[in-house]
Amino acid sequence: MPSAPTRGPLMIIGGAEDKLRKRTILKDFVVASGGHDARIVVIPTASSLGPEIVEVYEALFTKLGAAEVTTARPESREDAHDPGLVELLEKATGIFMTGGNQLKLSGAICGTPFGEAIIDAHERGAVVAGTSAGASIQSSHMVAFGVGGATPKQRMTQVAAGLGLVSSTVIDQHFDQRNRYGRLLMIVAQSPQLLGIGVDEDTAAVVEDVDGHEVLRVTGRGSVTIFDPARMVSNAHEARRSAPLLASGVMLHVLPAGSAYDLTTRTLVPQAHEVDDTEAAEIAEAGRDLRQLARDIAASDVSPTNLRRRLARNRRRVTPDETPASDGGMA
Amino acid sequence: MPSAPTRGPLMIIGGAEDKLRKRTILKDFVVASGGHDARIVVIPTASSLGPEIVEVYEALFTKLGAAEVTTARPESREDAHDPGLVELLEKATGIFMTGGNQLKLSGAICGTPFGEAIIDAHERGAVVAGTSAGASIQSSHMVAFGVGGATPKQRMTQVAAGLGLVSSTVIDQHFDQRNRYGRLLMIVAQSPQLLGIGVDEDTAAVVEDVDGHEVLRVTGRGSVTIFDPARMVSNAHEARRSAPLLASGVMLHVLPAGSAYDLTTRTLVPQAHEVDDTEAAEIAEAGRDLRQLARDIAASDVSPTNLRRRLARNRRRVTPDETPASDGGMA
Repeated sequence: MPSAPTRGPLMIIGGAEDKLRKRTILKDFVVASGGHDARIVVIPTASSLGPEIVEVYEALFTKLGAAEVTTARPESREDAHDPGLVELLEKATGIFMTGGNQLKLSGAICGTPFGEAIIDAHERGAVVAGTSAGASIQSSHMVAFGVGGATPKQRMTQVAAGLGLVSSTVIDQHFDQRNRYGRLLMIVAQSPQLLGIGVDEDTAAVVEDVDGHEVLRVTGRGSVTIFDPARMVSNAHEARRSAPLLASGVMLHVLPAGSAYDLTTRTLVPQAHEVDDTEAAEIAEAGRDLRQLARDIAASDVSPTNLRRRLARNRRRVTPDETPASDGGMA
Repeated sequence: MPSAPTRGPLMIIGGAEDKLRKRTILKDFVVASGGHDARIVVIPTASSLGPEIVEVYEALFTKLGAAEVTTARPESREDAHDPGLVELLEKATGIFMTGGNQLKLSGAICGTPFGEAIIDAHERGAVVAGTSAGASIQSSHMVAFGVGGATPKQRMTQVAAGLGLVSSTVIDQHFDQRNRYGRLLMIVAQSPQLLGIGVDEDTAAVVEDVDGHEVLRVTGRGSVTIFDPARMVSNAHEARRSAPLLASGVMLHVLPAGSAYDLTTRTLVPQAHEVDDTEAAEIAEAGRDLRQLARDIAASDVSPTNLRRRLARNRRRVTPDETPASDGGMA
């Protein structure tokens, strides 16, 4: 009996991912999808653009080495029942949802065979990625639309239902660039069981199953901001019209590339300690000196005065390729 | 022997306070300064404007009923040693520092007799208010300048020393309008003993001594945002160049008008519960019915059937001025 398949990674991209230079995020997507064996399906339903949006992503994924890149573009709920489109998703190793209008995307696919096929692909191990609108739709509760601003105000944004690939969350994108602290805080103030996740442009929150935990890793140029309102005090039930909202006691995490957050336990994953090269060279040099000293002491009695002299001599000893260790450390 | 005087209130205003319509914040300042007995000194040193900035505030405070409004404008550290200017502050019941460039203001007055006279005025009970630059300078650690953006990045802002009227804090202003989440988070990520306080435009954080606690109350149109990094994890010591910073586990409080925060204990002050008028009328009506019912039961045995009938009758009973209670509640 085969064991249950592991769910595939989710890539939640905050929009405007780099397409011209390093292309870190798009490259990661192709590699995670199988590289030269990748069968990628692009879903541009959210976009208001025509073939040009498809051409860009098809060209990029092909250039990055994918074996096969096709497009599935349901424009209506009718289209989203087309078995031909659903079949494309069933064969995919990677699915990429473009930016645009997330309500157009969710309105066309959520609760249809096409929408279910995206969820199934995730369950069987395929990569599901989306940028901007394609990021928002991955959460259980989706920001439909709203205004920018740092301060949360009643009615500044609307929530609709997303695909629910990440449960108990609301995801927002272009977070830094469009100043969306306020609207994401408004949503968690009204729904304190949700975790609010804001993703900056050219930044990805990569969610993977790690030993039964959902772990979110950050890659790219910006940060991922997380609001955990579990212990929050709010006046969301009684704030009037567009009044600023009370949201006191929200746990805030701002996570740059390289950091990771456990969505299951809602805690930061401790980071490996970064070693400073100069400091490491200095301490290695000191270690060599100390070992020499230990040998000297073992060989003969050394008076404290001689010991100090020897130490001073060792500190001055500089080989042609080295600068003195005492100059190399942090100020 | 006289008891030690109580420190005066501080009014930390986020800039662009309403000057034309309700003028809530400026009115509060004049009232707190003594109303018709108020002797107000305006300090426009931060401003790049000439007499026009002085004229605006002098006209406003006079119109709002202050007994006396004068201006003290040291433009250099030399000026800030002028006994005449210092004497003005010694007689003031209210001091108002205008907006402009906070480094110009702090550069001229901090560590001078004029700067000390502001601190002394606060100690003896005078109101010290400031808007924008005049707000920033009140904290112990002052945002000198920096760029906007929601995501904290290394080197995005500079800290200088402020007057320190509020200790262990860094205050930022125009918080919502200029998207200053990032720079305030950068500062607390580097200095986790500080409390970060961001004040929106036309909003005031009023800090007063309440039973030995420093309590911050919010008034005006926007919110006051507080970052408490006491339990934060950060990589601020090793983030390079302008890299986004890790700031995980920051306690966030967004406080609209009417809410209050205890700076001494770093906790929200519980708010009085707001009563909905319709709900109150409904429950009062139900109370009257129940009292009548209790009298009926005491007067005679009532069969369950009769009891239900009487209850139904009571629910239908509507006086000409009342709508049925069952329609009045919240949906």
